[in-house]
Amino acid sequence: MRLRLIGIGPGGPDDLTVAAVKALESVDVFLVADKQRGVDDLVSVREQILGRHTTGRYRTIVVPDPPRDRAPEQYGTEVRDWHAARAHAYEAVLHAEVRDDETVGFLVWGDPSLYDSTIRVVERIRDRGVLDIDYDVVPGVSSIQLLAARHRLVFNRIGGPITITTGRRLGTEVASGADNIVVMLDGQLACRDLDGDWDIWWGANLGTSDEEAVAGRLSEVLDAIDSARARAKAARGWVMDTYLLRRAE
Amino acid sequence: MRLRLIGIGPGGPDDLTVAAVKALESVDVFLVADKQRGVDDLVSVREQILGRHTTGRYRTIVVPDPPRDRAPEQYGTEVRDWHAARAHAYEAVLHAEVRDDETVGFLVWGDPSLYDSTIRVVERIRDRGVLDIDYDVVPGVSSIQLLAARHRLVFNRIGGPITITTGRRLGTEVASGADNIVVMLDGQLACRDLDGDWDIWWGANLGTSDEEAVAGRLSEVLDAIDSARARAKAARGWVMDTYLLRRAE
Ligand SMILES: C[S@@+](CC[C@H](N)C(=O)[O-])C[C@H]1O[C@@H](n2cnc3c(N)ncnc32)[C@H](O)[C@@H]1O
Ligand SMILES: C[S@@+](CC[C@H](N)C(=O)[O-])C[C@H]1O[C@@H](n2cnc3c(N)ncnc32)[C@H](O)[C@@H]1O
Repeated sequence: MRLRLIGIGPGGPDDLTVAAVKALESVDVFLVADKQRGVDDLVSVREQILGRHTTGRYRTIVVPDPPRDRAPEQYGTEVRDWHAARAHAYEAVLHAEVRDDETVGFLVWGDPSLYDSTIRVVERIRDRGVLDIDYDVVPGVSSIQLLAARHRLVFNRIGGPITITTGRRLGTEVASGADNIVVMLDGQLACRDLDGDWDIWWGANLGTSDEEAVAGRLSEVLDAIDSARARAKAARGWVMDTYLLRRAE
Repeated sequence: MRLRLIGIGPGGPDDLTVAAVKALESVDVFLVADKQRGVDDLVSVREQILGRHTTGRYRTIVVPDPPRDRAPEQYGTEVRDWHAARAHAYEAVLHAEVRDDETVGFLVWGDPSLYDSTIRVVERIRDRGVLDIDYDVVPGVSSIQLLAARHRLVFNRIGGPITITTGRRLGTEVASGADNIVVMLDGQLACRDLDGDWDIWWGANLGTSDEEAVAGRLSEVLDAIDSARARAKAARGWVMDTYLLRRAE
């Protein structure tokens, strides 16, 4: 059975590559995780992409997502348990509903290489050895690249490094000297608590028609970001945001 | 005058987004830097992309690239001087050969936000104030995302950070504790000199029909990488490579 992990970009219906469009066309069955978190709009973004870029000759199987503790004691362990549960759920569905000669597609938000579990889950399915699977990955534009595009940013200072991390780890990275940091997975705006002077380039729901962007000295724009975040959430029922932080010179 | 900086992906003719294809179609004049470094093949990749994805109703202006010292004493200063010279050369051409109501396109290799000078050069042209320009950026898949796709990699460990840097700065990043590092702009394989045990996922000329990929324990695969690098160079007349380094567990 062939599995294809296809990066679809971060939300805009045309923010996927021509190679990704061709990959979509090769798929017989799309597996879609049903997150049951009231984010129907995210499902509709995916449907919009399929509607616009395929001829519609495919099946879709919705797989209920295993429940997940969002604030666990042991982050890594909890995530790994959840990967195992997901691998198990996918395997059962693939086994029961997909033929060996079919191609299965996974629509991966943004790029599959950045803070996404699909590759890890598929590796687990393969390692379990029940199904004979082969898989490939089609890259996509990540949300952070759309952030850069909207603010017309180069992430690196000339010849300098870039740190990409999560809200959870932002304090640690700053403590160990990072001063040019892209933050993802931060529902709390962890940058609020930083000492010193920082510039921020922030964006939410990038690629959608309700995207928001704010830039400036961190201490001066925090309120504007809070408001923009609330607007994005109100407009679509969900909000995902990311930002570049750079220590002011 | 409208300028569009369009990310075209790292080499494959279909590794640009649908939004980028639409942007190409909106362009009247493409500005192309002539690097005179014998990399005609890179020019032909760009021509292949235009040939495949546009109707061909555009002009192309080739601008000779200002000479550049590749091993300067003062890296940052040298780069800034070169940006200034390039801004000057572009401005002259735009002024002489492009009408105010035309749209100018720049094909940017990979993604414009990663180690690319086009945004900085365009900012300089705008800041000079001679031309009245507005510009936007269309993101593209970066070479490092194609690296990840080919090796089916997730760049981050679960919840962990990613450092992106240049060969020149690799030693510094490792000394300050980075242990999961994506390296670009490294003609010398700076990782050769690292102490300790590292795993590497390496790729060259990704996206082209002559791409190369090698992965394994660094000390064991260095020879294979050297050979693959030489093969890539022989096949196309140029070689660009990038890799993920991760401290072995
Ligand atoms: C689980 S990660 C997946 C990232 C995805 N693989 C990518 O390449 O963008 C989700 C995080 O990505 C960022 N994100 C995803 N889509 C976004 C969007 N449209 N606008 C802003 N941030 C986004 C947010 O930081 C969010 O918390
Ligand atoms: C000046 S930087 C431009 C990077 C580009 N903006 C991007 O997003 O990939 C050039 C470096 O990118 C990497 N690179 C670009 N194209 C590549 C390719 N096709 N295969 C492997 N590495 C590539 C190499 O590390 C090279 O030294």
